[in-house]
Amino acid sequence: MKKLDLMQYFFTPKSIAVIGASQDKGSVGFVVLENFAKGKYKGKLYAVNPKHKKVQGIQSYASILDVQEEVEHAIITVPAKIVPLVLEQCGKKKVKAVTIVSAGFAEIGDHVLTEKLQAVMNTYKNMKVIGPNCLGQMYIKEHVDALFLPPYRLKRPKNGTVSFISQSGALGSAILDWAGARDYGINKFISYGNAMDIDEADLLEYLGEDKETKVIAMYIEGVRNGRKFFKIAKKVAKRKPVILIKGGMSEEGNKATLSHTGSLAGSAQVYKAVFKQTGIIHAKTMKQVFDFAKLFSNEPLMKGNRIQTITNGGGYGVLATDGIIQSGLQLAQPSSATKKAIRKVVPSYAIIENPIDLTGDADDKRYEVAVKACLADKNIDAIILILLFQVPTLSKNIDKVMEKILKTRKKPVIVMSAGGHYAAQHKKHLERHNIATFSSPFPAAHALKAMYEYGKKH
Amino acid sequence: MKKLDLMQYFFTPKSIAVIGASQDKGSVGFVVLENFAKGKYKGKLYAVNPKHKKVQGIQSYASILDVQEEVEHAIITVPAKIVPLVLEQCGKKKVKAVTIVSAGFAEIGDHVLTEKLQAVMNTYKNMKVIGPNCLGQMYIKEHVDALFLPPYRLKRPKNGTVSFISQSGALGSAILDWAGARDYGINKFISYGNAMDIDEADLLEYLGEDKETKVIAMYIEGVRNGRKFFKIAKKVAKRKPVILIKGGMSEEGNKATLSHTGSLAGSAQVYKAVFKQTGIIHAKTMKQVFDFAKLFSNEPLMKGNRIQTITNGGGYGVLATDGIIQSGLQLAQPSSATKKAIRKVVPSYAIIENPIDLTGDADDKRYEVAVKACLADKNIDAIILILLFQVPTLSKNIDKVMEKILKTRKKPVIVMSAGGHYAAQHKKHLERHNIATFSSPFPAAHALKAMYEYGKKH
Repeated sequence: MKKLDLMQYFFTPKSIAVIGASQDKGSVGFVVLENFAKGKYKGKLYAVNPKHKKVQGIQSYASILDVQEEVEHAIITVPAKIVPLVLEQCGKKKVKAVTIVSAGFAEIGDHVLTEKLQAVMNTYKNMKVIGPNCLGQMYIKEHVDALFLPPYRLKRPKNGTVSFISQSGALGSAILDWAGARDYGINKFISYGNAMDIDEADLLEYLGEDKETKVIAMYIEGVRNGRKFFKIAKKVAKRKPVILIKGGMSEEGNKATLSHTGSLAGSAQVYKAVFKQTGIIHAKTMKQVFDFAKLFSNEPLMKGNRIQTITNGGGYGVLATDGIIQSGLQLAQPSSATKKAIRKVVPSYAIIENPIDLTGDADDKRYEVAVKACLADKNIDAIILILLFQVPTLSKNIDKVMEKILKTRKKPVIVMSAGGHYAAQHKKHLERHNIATFSSPFPAAHALKAMYEYGKKH
Repeated sequence: MKKLDLMQYFFTPKSIAVIGASQDKGSVGFVVLENFAKGKYKGKLYAVNPKHKKVQGIQSYASILDVQEEVEHAIITVPAKIVPLVLEQCGKKKVKAVTIVSAGFAEIGDHVLTEKLQAVMNTYKNMKVIGPNCLGQMYIKEHVDALFLPPYRLKRPKNGTVSFISQSGALGSAILDWAGARDYGINKFISYGNAMDIDEADLLEYLGEDKETKVIAMYIEGVRNGRKFFKIAKKVAKRKPVILIKGGMSEEGNKATLSHTGSLAGSAQVYKAVFKQTGIIHAKTMKQVFDFAKLFSNEPLMKGNRIQTITNGGGYGVLATDGIIQSGLQLAQPSSATKKAIRKVVPSYAIIENPIDLTGDADDKRYEVAVKACLADKNIDAIILILLFQVPTLSKNIDKVMEKILKTRKKPVIVMSAGGHYAAQHKKHLERHNIATFSSPFPAAHALKAMYEYGKKH
């Protein structure tokens, strides 16, 4: 079976064994088993632990070889020392995909144990392995969730169209938690750790082919095979947006990666060249990863770089203008038809240029007219729609009014809104209806710039 | 009476009149009166509206001149056209401080009305005026709240040590709302609009003298009197941190400010020079205003630029290292005593350099030992303390454990933590105990850099 075909068993296995399944609350083997046992996973679940006959009420096997039925996927949580033995048993059992959560290999400098593990992998080539030293994978749609973080601490996100590859488990988990809290969808998540078998390039290739994944986001510290990564990245980035943040862009950060995942990170210059040549979208901060993913997964691509701001707060209009210019985009010049339409519904002193300032006492009607006009205006490629929900002249339904108008948009619209709970509720409504919202004008402009640059190549 | 003495009547008036008090829900005159009537303001409250005998159950006067008792402060919400008349009545009544919320003057190009208003101000020099075209002021401690935004839409923050001056009402209100939702304290807030009498420099001077204000944050688009501002800024910035974001740093944004508050913003070069020479801390985004205010109001100043990262997530440790280097700070070199102390409580493979990686299964004890050692270590000037609360090995009380250890800290500690609700709860506990928390490593490093630069001059 080909590698890409085997990889499906990480995400849609019909049977899963947790090797190292545990009774001890708080232990990795406990949480992983519990997440499947209490979750909605519909396949068969096996616990492997030689010390117990039952673990969390589930029959436990001394070894995976004792399981009679086929096991498509195994998750290994045992101590590092016995991982090679246990993996060998998985090989004999013809398990197709194995996730090794356990840490204690190359990342701590244990090369003897690492070589032992490598030898097993070399023997069983038809078994694909993620890890060791990783959080494993998650595919919400099928309730496959290898994460050893309990749901009360890390809320799982809903199903979506962004998939995320992370060399770092902690970073990956924080993103999932963040997405869960904000009601953003994630399709597939993989924390791949030391990448002894399946590496970042394999995962990128797999998600590149994956029809459910519209946008790929990545955190990497280094690549295992530069040529392979380059070739695959170039292919995938043509097909869908690949957003990447690289840890260790500074020399000192680079050194720190060595002790983290045992990979040498390579120079910043090399990576910058790779991003440019492959079409990868380079995010410089975690915030940008979120921002870009949100924009690319929700909004249509831009056809030009002319941005229009609509606002009910003059100050934010000014900052959005600064942001558009500083990010290297252009101010749109709204058409006279647009200006005329808006002029009819605003007070005489309102300025209808760029920004279009609907003024502090703007009501729903003004926004309706302005947004419709700008959506139809051929001089405008994208809109930063500033909506300060706090003002009493806007109805409580302004989010729903905007959602309906924006449903058929053919250009990207970022709704920018700052504030507390009331604003957050309204933003959440828009997000649920796949409209990108931001809290600040500069990041909105920078995200549009990234989208414009990507769009030029597509 | 001197200007600075008169200004107290904006914040601690014993009596307030709302001129233009209204019965119409949603109108400015309604919300302003309601906020006082339903709020906890302890002084005397008067409604002025010639059309009604009672407004919201409060006796209403035809004019402020009909009020027998002294009125220290008046808030004007009537249409622009009658503002000069009403202000003149305030002058005759010897009101000490007036806030004109009403818009429709220089910002819409109405210079005739603006001149009329100016003439009244010139006549009554002992009456100080904020506005027109502003949100007015708020002082939570005395429940003085001129904001026409209803509390269900804009949650008021608790009392704190950061005061905020904003030329833009919308920006200011978003900050208040944001602070309210996150439980951050604000001391005094002033949205000053067109600044016809009291301008940004007067407010800066007042807050510079104000003992309750530890940190001053500002949003401005332009200054009315460059020399005056420069002189006052230089004086105040020596005494306490002044964090400023300027709208209209780009030429195009600058143009947009003209239509917003009727002020010419001036070139970016001039402003940059002013920031440098006065010691003002220049925030480039709204996010940085929040970040810097949080850090300066909670943390002791740094004595050097050597930053130590402690983490339970390798990836975030790498990014923090990148952030420290890219922001121009240095990596601390922990002393051998520090390393020795930590070595005793971590697994053999844990790397105790910079970052100190307590590894993914770190428990409360490891953090306790590491943080105590770093707080005592003379090689370390500040700490980025990465705490990923999601991992099951950390107890639910880790926030309280950290809070106790950090209580007596003499160097800044930023707790960096990403994620959703569970993480947010723990962060909130730390924030309530005046410990700065961030969601991302780069902003944490940049904020420390700003603090270091400020500290060098103090």
